[in-house]
Amino acid sequence: MFKLKPYIAPDFTQEPFVSAPNAALVPAPFDGVAPEQYHAMSIFPEYFKIDGQWLLAEESRMDCVAVYENGRIAVREFRLLKQGDMVIVGRTENCEEGIYMYTDGFRETSGTKDAFAFRTGRSRETAFSKDYDELYELLRHDREHGKIVWVMGPAFSFDSDARKAMSKLVEHGYVDAILAGNALATHDLEGAYLRTALGQDIYTQESMPNGHYNHLDTINRVKYHGSISEFIRKENIDNGIIYSCEKYGVPYVLGGSIRDDGPLPPVFGNVYEAQDAMRNQVREATTVICMATTLHTIATGNMTPSFRVLPDGTIRQVYFYCVDISEFAVNKLADRGSLSARGIVTNVQDFVVNLAKGLGIYE
Amino acid sequence: MFKLKPYIAPDFTQEPFVSAPNAALVPAPFDGVAPEQYHAMSIFPEYFKIDGQWLLAEESRMDCVAVYENGRIAVREFRLLKQGDMVIVGRTENCEEGIYMYTDGFRETSGTKDAFAFRTGRSRETAFSKDYDELYELLRHDREHGKIVWVMGPAFSFDSDARKAMSKLVEHGYVDAILAGNALATHDLEGAYLRTALGQDIYTQESMPNGHYNHLDTINRVKYHGSISEFIRKENIDNGIIYSCEKYGVPYVLGGSIRDDGPLPPVFGNVYEAQDAMRNQVREATTVICMATTLHTIATGNMTPSFRVLPDGTIRQVYFYCVDISEFAVNKLADRGSLSARGIVTNVQDFVVNLAKGLGIYE
Amino acid sequence: MFKLKPYIAPDFTQEPFVSAPNAALVPAPFDGVAPEQYHAMSIFPEYFKIDGQWLLAEESRMDCVAVYENGRIAVREFRLLKQGDMVIVGRTENCEEGIYMYTDGFRETSGTKDAFAFRTGRSRETAFSKDYDELYELLRHDREHGKIVWVMGPAFSFDSDARKAMSKLVEHGYVDAILAGNALATHDLEGAYLRTALGQDIYTQESMPNGHYNHLDTINRVKYHGSISEFIRKENIDNGIIYSCEKYGVPYVLGGSIRDDGPLPPVFGNVYEAQDAMRNQVREATTVICMATTLHTIATGNMTPSFRVLPDGTIRQVYFYCVDISEFAVNKLADRGSLSARGIVTNVQDFVVNLAKGLGIYE
Amino acid sequence: MFKLKPYIAPDFTQEPFVSAPNAALVPAPFDGVAPEQYHAMSIFPEYFKIDGQWLLAEESRMDCVAVYENGRIAVREFRLLKQGDMVIVGRTENCEEGIYMYTDGFRETSGTKDAFAFRTGRSRETAFSKDYDELYELLRHDREHGKIVWVMGPAFSFDSDARKAMSKLVEHGYVDAILAGNALATHDLEGAYLRTALGQDIYTQESMPNGHYNHLDTINRVKYHGSISEFIRKENIDNGIIYSCEKYGVPYVLGGSIRDDGPLPPVFGNVYEAQDAMRNQVREATTVICMATTLHTIATGNMTPSFRVLPDGTIRQVYFYCVDISEFAVNKLADRGSLSARGIVTNVQDFVVNLAKGLGIYE
Repeated sequence: MFKLKPYIAPDFTQEPFVSAPNAALVPAPFDGVAPEQYHAMSIFPEYFKIDGQWLLAEESRMDCVAVYENGRIAVREFRLLKQGDMVIVGRTENCEEGIYMYTDGFRETSGTKDAFAFRTGRSRETAFSKDYDELYELLRHDREHGKIVWVMGPAFSFDSDARKAMSKLVEHGYVDAILAGNALATHDLEGAYLRTALGQDIYTQESMPNGHYNHLDTINRVKYHGSISEFIRKENIDNGIIYSCEKYGVPYVLGGSIRDDGPLPPVFGNVYEAQDAMRNQVREATTVICMATTLHTIATGNMTPSFRVLPDGTIRQVYFYCVDISEFAVNKLADRGSLSARGIVTNVQDFVVNLAKGLGIYE
Repeated sequence: MFKLKPYIAPDFTQEPFVSAPNAALVPAPFDGVAPEQYHAMSIFPEYFKIDGQWLLAEESRMDCVAVYENGRIAVREFRLLKQGDMVIVGRTENCEEGIYMYTDGFRETSGTKDAFAFRTGRSRETAFSKDYDELYELLRHDREHGKIVWVMGPAFSFDSDARKAMSKLVEHGYVDAILAGNALATHDLEGAYLRTALGQDIYTQESMPNGHYNHLDTINRVKYHGSISEFIRKENIDNGIIYSCEKYGVPYVLGGSIRDDGPLPPVFGNVYEAQDAMRNQVREATTVICMATTLHTIATGNMTPSFRVLPDGTIRQVYFYCVDISEFAVNKLADRGSLSARGIVTNVQDFVVNLAKGLGIYE
Repeated sequence: MFKLKPYIAPDFTQEPFVSAPNAALVPAPFDGVAPEQYHAMSIFPEYFKIDGQWLLAEESRMDCVAVYENGRIAVREFRLLKQGDMVIVGRTENCEEGIYMYTDGFRETSGTKDAFAFRTGRSRETAFSKDYDELYELLRHDREHGKIVWVMGPAFSFDSDARKAMSKLVEHGYVDAILAGNALATHDLEGAYLRTALGQDIYTQESMPNGHYNHLDTINRVKYHGSISEFIRKENIDNGIIYSCEKYGVPYVLGGSIRDDGPLPPVFGNVYEAQDAMRNQVREATTVICMATTLHTIATGNMTPSFRVLPDGTIRQVYFYCVDISEFAVNKLADRGSLSARGIVTNVQDFVVNLAKGLGIYE
Repeated sequence: MFKLKPYIAPDFTQEPFVSAPNAALVPAPFDGVAPEQYHAMSIFPEYFKIDGQWLLAEESRMDCVAVYENGRIAVREFRLLKQGDMVIVGRTENCEEGIYMYTDGFRETSGTKDAFAFRTGRSRETAFSKDYDELYELLRHDREHGKIVWVMGPAFSFDSDARKAMSKLVEHGYVDAILAGNALATHDLEGAYLRTALGQDIYTQESMPNGHYNHLDTINRVKYHGSISEFIRKENIDNGIIYSCEKYGVPYVLGGSIRDDGPLPPVFGNVYEAQDAMRNQVREATTVICMATTLHTIATGNMTPSFRVLPDGTIRQVYFYCVDISEFAVNKLADRGSLSARGIVTNVQDFVVNLAKGLGIYE
């Protein structure tokens, strides 16, 4: 049975916490500009000593700054800084400057370590059986006790079974929010409306006559009706990912990109507003699963800390999966510092079908 | 010596042009919504019969609609349609509905064709020698007689030699515009300011202490100074791609994305405004070279037609190259209809250095 | 329900067959050397007119030559030619030289074809649902009425579930032969003997202390016992692919390679003897499924024709699948002329587990 | 200027060397079988205490065993063991069992290490400028003072410029041996004989009529003449890699594989004889550069130690490069234990042209 690892909080009554100085605060010189030597956040829990008290930055975000206000530590994007915001400065993380980054609050029972070992990275040759088994348990747990956020690339909806499996996941409560772009939603709706993706039948793979119009027709029709929900109602749409989200009240955030056609009405044209909307979904996420998108995966990875403070004050781990057919994409998150991400190298169609079968919701 | 292929215009005094009906025009029902059966544009020259005259859509853009206004055919994104715009409808392309798509205006001297041939696609195993030789000639030609637009992915500036080669290309007039994102500019400026990319020395590959601050420090410093040009002046920046653009007056468009830190001041937060700015650069482009970015390549590919009407009225071919280490990325353009793109499968560092050496501007 | 497409034989009572000349025969000048203008075989049925009769080369093999002997057409590797063998010469395929290559004996009901269509190749974004459904039916059919040959790369046995699924396929009669190399067998036996692959636990992914000895210890132990079957008996091996093959009498051919450790006793050190042994298995194959190996896939693809003459004289199609996580590998067969291969782009672990689940033999 | 790092030999007059026991020797129980607990070699220098003396295994090979005979330590493949060979047993490497593996004989001046750093692996985004610069120096040095061995995949000769650059490297003394397979030699000779690779012009990329015969015709013609040298003479071949090797007396070893057509006369049909011939070339290698082949790279990597004992008794480093367009291939060596390999991720065509240009031997 799945059990969360307990968080072992630092003991602030001990050294070096007791003798550590207070963290230094310097006001932001202009809107959108941090003071010299600002401290940038990581994905780990970080504590700051303010007036002799160690405060946790509860809602963290990598590469953002810590602002002290109203007795709490807010973590703020540079672009949202206001002149005069009190920003924590200091680039050490071991209390010397009143800053403590805590990387092992969820202790692993460390296995035997060998001086030399083959195959330490993640590749197509990694054995993923256990990852699947753990995912089944994690998803069952977090369906009841957490928030599961899915991130999807544009081609995720190109395949009939993948769409069906994802719809089942929504239907059975395994999806609490979806982060994606205009293309994912467009092709999923195209699949529901015209049974194609980019003009190709999502089951038979046949190219339809004039099929290259299909995604444009879909967008145009949605815009004609004024909204996706109205489109679904008027055109009798009855299947697909977006349809399921609408039916079961699952929020989806669609971030715009420079390659968009259309776009569909709910797409955020301004990417920084999209970031804000995404972070709002991520704030309570306990599991994040990214599939077949480097752009959205990195964007989401950057805003997802490794931990979450639950409403009752307990702290739990956040699980982050990155599923992609390319090792490069899977390993890219690690290159950028999101070290806690777990990669699975496969075609996401098979991944999601396997997952739904393993959860017993797809025959 | 490089010679443009002449454009052989259709002979509209012949059939089927003479007997073809006029194209049908239907007003857009709402802002941003095209009428049913709207005609979507391709990358090829397309002519529309209006009042008995065949008019060319001079500035085309794939997947957009043709609007007749002021005696000309404008090609407009759906999102820019206004209620009442007179949109051409019809989905045939052989004159039956007054619409003619002309795919072979620049006739190839067709080689002998065999019923069966190995290796018809583009892969790492394609022989690229001739592509390089043609590129040298094309660039020399278009430096004098065209407009060369470069599109770059975020990691392009990670390598010392690649940055140097690209700077040489700018310096010698081979670069008329750059389309990229926040990350490319950030890492290029980081390289100039702190000699690193994501904290790693761009030559020695050594990771700098606290190097993960470097890109953030760079952005923050630019914002402190208020603009990139001011940053360059005040911080004595003297190398790099963006520096060279500023020095030689080469415009660059930076489109925002949901994964951006910062962003730098000139980045377009609204991606549709970014599209407009990109298309403004592309309108006069005669050669487009995309390197190491799927997102920007597809975005640019979608807005680049296969031809250009020069100020003197002659029509010439537009050359489009897509350089990437992944066959999937290189072939993706073809999947989306930008069939005239030529792919080169390699690491863009080597590509650009080889190019600069071949042009004799890099010792 | 799955139905084989009927083979529509050419009507040799019609032209151009009737007036065609006899095929020319020229003796091989030396052992291993074909005469000038030898005819090389394709994967398709090919007929040769000899003494006024059209004879089918029944057991074909691409890039080999046709030898007339004992009233039949044998298809022979160059290396097996004997001086004086009567080799058919001629490089046309439409009867002009008494040679007829027949590419559409199994006629497809051709769908509507559009002048332009997106996404014509096979990539990670292809919709594979229907391929899976067809495979389920094909395997059920050929378990009863055909011969199913599996080809596997070295890493196929690295994952616990994949090994289990493959064992189930053997157990339930879906595997009639396996073609692989020393590494596949070694790591599969390592998994059974020590529960690792290259020293890493095939389920938990943990690296075992001194685990880099495990594959060597496995080979050494097999050699100590003298044979794989003896090793299985003496060491109480009770799971895995090779174990299942031994238990259910499924033949496996292991071809050697220059990267082999060991090798295991049944491995062919001479690769041309390995080719012969592989072709002996392929001669009766009706379905071939290649997974995660470029080397063995191309080797097998080269020796697998698109058709099979059954004992009762009827001719049926041979199905050939190539499953790999890399588009390059999947598309490579097509580049080399094995045009009838169908590619599936995914991690083979997921492929085989999905397959076994779809066949209802894996819970 | 390039300088070899000096080898700092262990001081065997100190502990723990002095008190260490002698290494245990156990006779091989059968031909080809090592005793239980045999010691397997690594790529590093390893010393064994025999009769109180520490002996270095001078010509090492990963995953082979150490045999004491005639007062020296021979490193032997399992398959070459003879019953009664005295094999060293023991699986510790720190003198406890008289075995010492020495991993830092060539000490690096270690840079500052940060707790956290981005981008520690090798990918398309690694900055390779310095690797090129070092390679130029290394090749210039080893042309005079070492032995440079090149390993090539089958498609290396598909491109005109790459063939030319490689020929220049041979001509100028930068190539002391080549390890490859039947396909590399076949396509290179096809390029020289018919100006194609797999029927496609190596410069214009045009597919020749009946071009799929070209590689077969090339092999058949070589076999007709009896040898490659005779073929070159009789057919007036005057360009290419193999031609250059023949002209300048550079040995090449061609290992067979199950996908071979032909094969050409000098190809080793038995892969273990091929291994022996390859190792004979590698024994004196000081630099090894592998390009575009996973199979040959791993095979060569397994037999290349990280050091070399020169005739004068000094010990120097062996440099090992792996150049491939796929991160997976580049990183695979590390997964298998050949940790000292340096990877460069690019198209080998560009790599070799850049290299030849950097060495000033290619205009």
